[in-house]
Amino acid sequence: MKVAIFFGSKSDVDTMRGAAKALKEFNVKYKAFVLSAHRVPEKLDETIKQIESEGYEVIIAGAGLAAHLPGVIASKTVIPVIGVPVSAALNGLDALFSIVQMPKSIPVATVGINNSYNAGMLAVQMLSLKYPDIKEKLIKFREEMKVKFIKENGEGVEL
Amino acid sequence: MKVAIFFGSKSDVDTMRGAAKALKEFNVKYKAFVLSAHRVPEKLDETIKQIESEGYEVIIAGAGLAAHLPGVIASKTVIPVIGVPVSAALNGLDALFSIVQMPKSIPVATVGINNSYNAGMLAVQMLSLKYPDIKEKLIKFREEMKVKFIKENGEGVEL
Amino acid sequence: MKVAIFFGSKSDVDTMRGAAKALKEFNVKYKAFVLSAHRVPEKLDETIKQIESEGYEVIIAGAGLAAHLPGVIASKTVIPVIGVPVSAALNGLDALFSIVQMPKSIPVATVGINNSYNAGMLAVQMLSLKYPDIKEKLIKFREEMKVKFIKENGEGVEL
Amino acid sequence: MKVAIFFGSKSDVDTMRGAAKALKEFNVKYKAFVLSAHRVPEKLDETIKQIESEGYEVIIAGAGLAAHLPGVIASKTVIPVIGVPVSAALNGLDALFSIVQMPKSIPVATVGINNSYNAGMLAVQMLSLKYPDIKEKLIKFREEMKVKFIKENGEGVEL
Amino acid sequence: MKVAIFFGSKSDVDTMRGAAKALKEFNVKYKAFVLSAHRVPEKLDETIKQIESEGYEVIIAGAGLAAHLPGVIASKTVIPVIGVPVSAALNGLDALFSIVQMPKSIPVATVGINNSYNAGMLAVQMLSLKYPDIKEKLIKFREEMKVKFIKENGEGVEL
Amino acid sequence: MKVAIFFGSKSDVDTMRGAAKALKEFNVKYKAFVLSAHRVPEKLDETIKQIESEGYEVIIAGAGLAAHLPGVIASKTVIPVIGVPVSAALNGLDALFSIVQMPKSIPVATVGINNSYNAGMLAVQMLSLKYPDIKEKLIKFREEMKVKFIKENGEGVEL
Amino acid sequence: MKVAIFFGSKSDVDTMRGAAKALKEFNVKYKAFVLSAHRVPEKLDETIKQIESEGYEVIIAGAGLAAHLPGVIASKTVIPVIGVPVSAALNGLDALFSIVQMPKSIPVATVGINNSYNAGMLAVQMLSLKYPDIKEKLIKFREEMKVKFIKENGEGVEL
Amino acid sequence: MKVAIFFGSKSDVDTMRGAAKALKEFNVKYKAFVLSAHRVPEKLDETIKQIESEGYEVIIAGAGLAAHLPGVIASKTVIPVIGVPVSAALNGLDALFSIVQMPKSIPVATVGINNSYNAGMLAVQMLSLKYPDIKEKLIKFREEMKVKFIKENGEGVEL
Repeated sequence: MKVAIFFGSKSDVDTMRGAAKALKEFNVKYKAFVLSAHRVPEKLDETIKQIESEGYEVIIAGAGLAAHLPGVIASKTVIPVIGVPVSAALNGLDALFSIVQMPKSIPVATVGINNSYNAGMLAVQMLSLKYPDIKEKLIKFREEMKVKFIKENGEGVEL
Repeated sequence: MKVAIFFGSKSDVDTMRGAAKALKEFNVKYKAFVLSAHRVPEKLDETIKQIESEGYEVIIAGAGLAAHLPGVIASKTVIPVIGVPVSAALNGLDALFSIVQMPKSIPVATVGINNSYNAGMLAVQMLSLKYPDIKEKLIKFREEMKVKFIKENGEGVEL
Repeated sequence: MKVAIFFGSKSDVDTMRGAAKALKEFNVKYKAFVLSAHRVPEKLDETIKQIESEGYEVIIAGAGLAAHLPGVIASKTVIPVIGVPVSAALNGLDALFSIVQMPKSIPVATVGINNSYNAGMLAVQMLSLKYPDIKEKLIKFREEMKVKFIKENGEGVEL
Repeated sequence: MKVAIFFGSKSDVDTMRGAAKALKEFNVKYKAFVLSAHRVPEKLDETIKQIESEGYEVIIAGAGLAAHLPGVIASKTVIPVIGVPVSAALNGLDALFSIVQMPKSIPVATVGINNSYNAGMLAVQMLSLKYPDIKEKLIKFREEMKVKFIKENGEGVEL
Repeated sequence: MKVAIFFGSKSDVDTMRGAAKALKEFNVKYKAFVLSAHRVPEKLDETIKQIESEGYEVIIAGAGLAAHLPGVIASKTVIPVIGVPVSAALNGLDALFSIVQMPKSIPVATVGINNSYNAGMLAVQMLSLKYPDIKEKLIKFREEMKVKFIKENGEGVEL
Repeated sequence: MKVAIFFGSKSDVDTMRGAAKALKEFNVKYKAFVLSAHRVPEKLDETIKQIESEGYEVIIAGAGLAAHLPGVIASKTVIPVIGVPVSAALNGLDALFSIVQMPKSIPVATVGINNSYNAGMLAVQMLSLKYPDIKEKLIKFREEMKVKFIKENGEGVEL
Repeated sequence: MKVAIFFGSKSDVDTMRGAAKALKEFNVKYKAFVLSAHRVPEKLDETIKQIESEGYEVIIAGAGLAAHLPGVIASKTVIPVIGVPVSAALNGLDALFSIVQMPKSIPVATVGINNSYNAGMLAVQMLSLKYPDIKEKLIKFREEMKVKFIKENGEGVEL
Repeated sequence: MKVAIFFGSKSDVDTMRGAAKALKEFNVKYKAFVLSAHRVPEKLDETIKQIESEGYEVIIAGAGLAAHLPGVIASKTVIPVIGVPVSAALNGLDALFSIVQMPKSIPVATVGINNSYNAGMLAVQMLSLKYPDIKEKLIKFREEMKVKFIKENGEGVEL
């Protein structure tokens, strides 16, 4: 297991599935945990310790509203934490601010609102520092993305 | 001691002094703790347990940016938590959203941006549920506030 | 009766029902009043005096747009007032600002946009200062919430 | 006396002076009242009744933060109320929303943030419905404004 | 005819109908003009002159996006102009700013987003300065509004 | 003369000077007009007709608050209009919305807040469609900009 | 071919069709390119060079989210670039800011959110600098627009 | 060299120094490049290729306004890019949106507005995946941060 995906409620599954999709494309193993920073803080602490001991290397955390989950996790581990603001109110602006505006020393690597796919992709990029095969796959992925994009769109469209 | 005042850095002292000012006006005992939810989370947990055991009855917590401190405290105790958004960026809008938009079941009683005086006053109002003398003082305070206001402003002003 | 719930129109019933739900979970008695600060200000004044004389201990007030109801009530009583911003325009940002940004001395304990359940829960926490049995229930509620959360989510989910 | 100018604190005098300036230019009599909707609500009610009985015809009310003053006055009288959002936080956006987003039936005629001069001018325009001499002055004022503007700026500037 | 209602497109009819509704409740005569400040500026100028000569006393203008219509009208006449921000994008925030933030000397009396009913009511209040019967109706309207409100809501609701 | 620069007050001179600076760099002739859409609308109409007859080819218009000047000009001529939002309140957000959100058929080419230099540059780019020498200068300008940038920054900096 | 229309995904076709519509009304030839600044940057560079060599005179580029496409194109060519913010999140505010707030020297002529029709119209206005027949058509278009508007709306509407 | 720091102008040096400070604390080698995505795009491309060939492992990029630099770099390399929104207008909200709202597949790891220190810290955390000694230092850093925090703030403060 390399990546742990956290979110606060099963109702976030659809929004967070993108993270898993990106990780699968690179054969990166992951596990999803439904854990709330506010409702089960002790269980969260315990789980963070567990995933540290099991050697997880990157954490993705999605949350909406006063989205504390990514920041709370980041305060408890030095494993890099990627935050996904989930739009549950105010178009997700509350979640974005609550995740990205972390105080000095405890960063959260924030991606776009509801953009869990990019969280997965960023996790892959982080892992590619260590795993040369993932880096190769990433380079190949980009190339294929370009080929595919041009194939699909190269002729332009009628407007 | 009845009220615990938390904030994340000594640089917030000036903003948070208003809370103490309001409490002093009602002879409510308080103690101030400089504790960061992100930098010293274990010490924060420990302190929350300590103030619970010492019988504190209301908590005031001020924070800026991705202001997690009030919500993290609220998740660890049933003592009511009053949150003060401190403007460190974005005119304090980030702190306001990070404090007020708490998820279901774990509320933070949020007051205005930088308005720690009102946090103190709200703490007094909460305490007045239990302490009839504080309620009496509150009623008297309001009356005196009115008298003072009219005395100072009753004649109107030249514009 | 311990908690009075105010809102300005029967159309807010669905949004405000959460407050009642939270209070019922703690067997806290409440009564709902449909009263508008702008349309029936005299009736509002009268009702505030009435609930003061009947010994209500906490007030919850929900309002949308230029949401004056919580602040107007707070200016007329020292009973703590909990404000619920209701999203009727601008995603509720107008209501949030109109409720939370109260001037010095007259606070409103503001909860999240449309989050009346948290208003109810905050009322319960305030009452727990005075009523030890409510405090015990709160502690138990949190414990049960944790157990239930872990039971429902402990296995994680497939992403 | 034709116009009553309300604001909540002597600290607003500089911002509100523009209203008086505009009124003076049209020889419209006015009186300024320092009254807070939240601190002295009863005195405010009393004053509204008094100005009604004294035949005031337009009300200007300036307020900052959760700016309830204009709306509260509007709920107590049918005299038209002009609201001036004063920027005390959030660049005045909180005051703007709190004043302009009034519920159905109780409008406040809102002018720009800190733009009390325009509140005075709007009061003059309202009065011109009834007083033909004010209407004549307004037409003349506009003409003179144009002449003056062209005189001062007609030659253009060097950039 | 006393009130002229302007808006830029027939697609705004539904939003602007509230203004007519309020005016009808007071038997105030009005006429609606579909005119765009940007598409037919000369026709707009001509119409403003026409309604001035026909003795219209108040103008209501609704517009969305970069809502210039109310301000452009206000720059061409001293008849008071009431602006209604129509939400066509950005929840109506663009229209609100474009209408309310008028420069010194040329005010627009702005009401809430999409709240054309309040524009009608404000027009009635302006007319009441001059027409004592309208003022009486206004006072009666408020009284009836209160009676009706209490009748409909006096029993409270079950939550 | 090729470019007309409009703005509503001599107080905008400093903000608008950038437009002149850019035009001078390309030897494009321009003239500045201080004209307000709201205070001297007839003079504005007249001046637009005059510059049309004198063969001006691009118009730059800067304005703050409810910034109608660019849009009003655009409604009166088919000469392309470049709008510069000037920050006079709300960090210039009001001006930006008032300029960019123009209705269908009457566009304003909007540049960044206070960025009059870019308005000048955009005017130059528009003129380059017609004048090959300006296009050549633009290409050369870009090349020189690059050379200069690399010369100044090529060594990097010590952090 | 005179105008090149760029956008990042076939899913933007509906939003961008307005640009084509405006251009067709003036018989201005155009071609649409589906190209992403982030996914196929090299292909984008290549295409920009190609359209430069083919003599395109104006570029329209639509993009959502962190909408870099217009600015990236503008940095690679001196052909004027018109940017269309597409609302994919945050009501399009993110795209608007990402397009309009360009740094000194590299402007993007920004139009309203989703308002690709105005991008087409602005392109026509730019081309009219060089092509007198397009200018004549523009003047005629405006006249016809006025006639049509008055024909459709001249009678007013019943409210 | 492990980390490349990019920003668009020497005027950003003060804001970006925090990144260097954090990296120095962990003895992570870095180099700063002043490069603009809009002014010298070819030089930027070239530099990205160069740092790829030199084995840089993480990129930090700071930018203000329509902050394209981080996203443009991210589109050209699979090295993870950390974006720092710099507040040059709109309190940095424009830069935040322009950096964080990246489209699918090309993420930028965004940190708080002006918070370059956290960008440095996040780079260190990413490097710690690969370099066990950096991970050890990080764990030690956190411990020392806690000890230092408690030493400095443990006694609380007088309010």
